[in-house]
Amino acid sequence: MRYKQVIVVRKDLGMSCGKLAAQAAHASLEAAEESRRKIPDVYRRWREEGAKKVVVQVNSEEELVKVYQEAIRNGLVAVIIRDAGLTELEPGTLTAVGIGPHENEKVDKVTGRLKLYR
Amino acid sequence: MRYKQVIVVRKDLGMSCGKLAAQAAHASLEAAEESRRKIPDVYRRWREEGAKKVVVQVNSEEELVKVYQEAIRNGLVAVIIRDAGLTELEPGTLTAVGIGPHENEKVDKVTGRLKLYR
Repeated sequence: MRYKQVIVVRKDLGMSCGKLAAQAAHASLEAAEESRRKIPDVYRRWREEGAKKVVVQVNSEEELVKVYQEAIRNGLVAVIIRDAGLTELEPGTLTAVGIGPHENEKVDKVTGRLKLYR
Repeated sequence: MRYKQVIVVRKDLGMSCGKLAAQAAHASLEAAEESRRKIPDVYRRWREEGAKKVVVQVNSEEELVKVYQEAIRNGLVAVIIRDAGLTELEPGTLTAVGIGPHENEKVDKVTGRLKLYR
C-alpha cells in the first residue's frame, strides 16, 4: 500500500479506550474530508487500497501541537481536534491530530519516529 | 445536538487501544462516506453540529452482525468492517459497525441498549 493516514493521540490524557476511539474517529474523518477536497486523487487511491490508518501516541499537548505544526510546514493535510468537554475531559482540550492520507514516506517524515498507540 | 453516529466495536476480540481506535476510525469514515452520498443534508448538519460520535460495545461476532442487520432493516446507513488481518487479528475478522449519522432517536432505536465502550 502506497498511502496511509496517521492519527496521533495524546496518551497522557488517560482517556478510556472508547473515548480514545471517538477522538481517533474525529481526527480521521476531519483529515479525510480535507484530503478529499484538497488532494482528491490521493484520497481516492487511499480508499481503494483499503484506507490504511495508523494510530500513534504522544505524551503532552506540546508534543501534539509540534507534530501538527511540522505536518503543516511539510505541506501535509493535517487537522487538530479540540474536545468539547462533554464527557471525560475539560472543554477545549487538544486531544488528537489527523494527518493525510499521503504517500507513506511523506507522512513518515513527520510521524515516523512516534510509537504505536498500545 | 440532533444527530449522532454510533460506532459498535467487538470487545471480545481484546484489541489493543490503538487497534480499536483504528477500527473505529474505519467504521466511522466508511459510514460517513455513505451518509454523505445517501443523506447529504443530514451529513452536513451532523458535521456542522460537531459530528458527535459514540463508541459502544458488543461481545461477539454474532451480536455485531445482528446490530448491523437491524440497522439495515430500519433503513439506517450502516457499514461493517472486516479486518485485513495484517496486525493483531485473523484476516477477515469482523470488528466493527458504523451507523449513521442519523437523528439521535433513529439510531437509539437500534443501539440504545448497548453499553458504552470503556
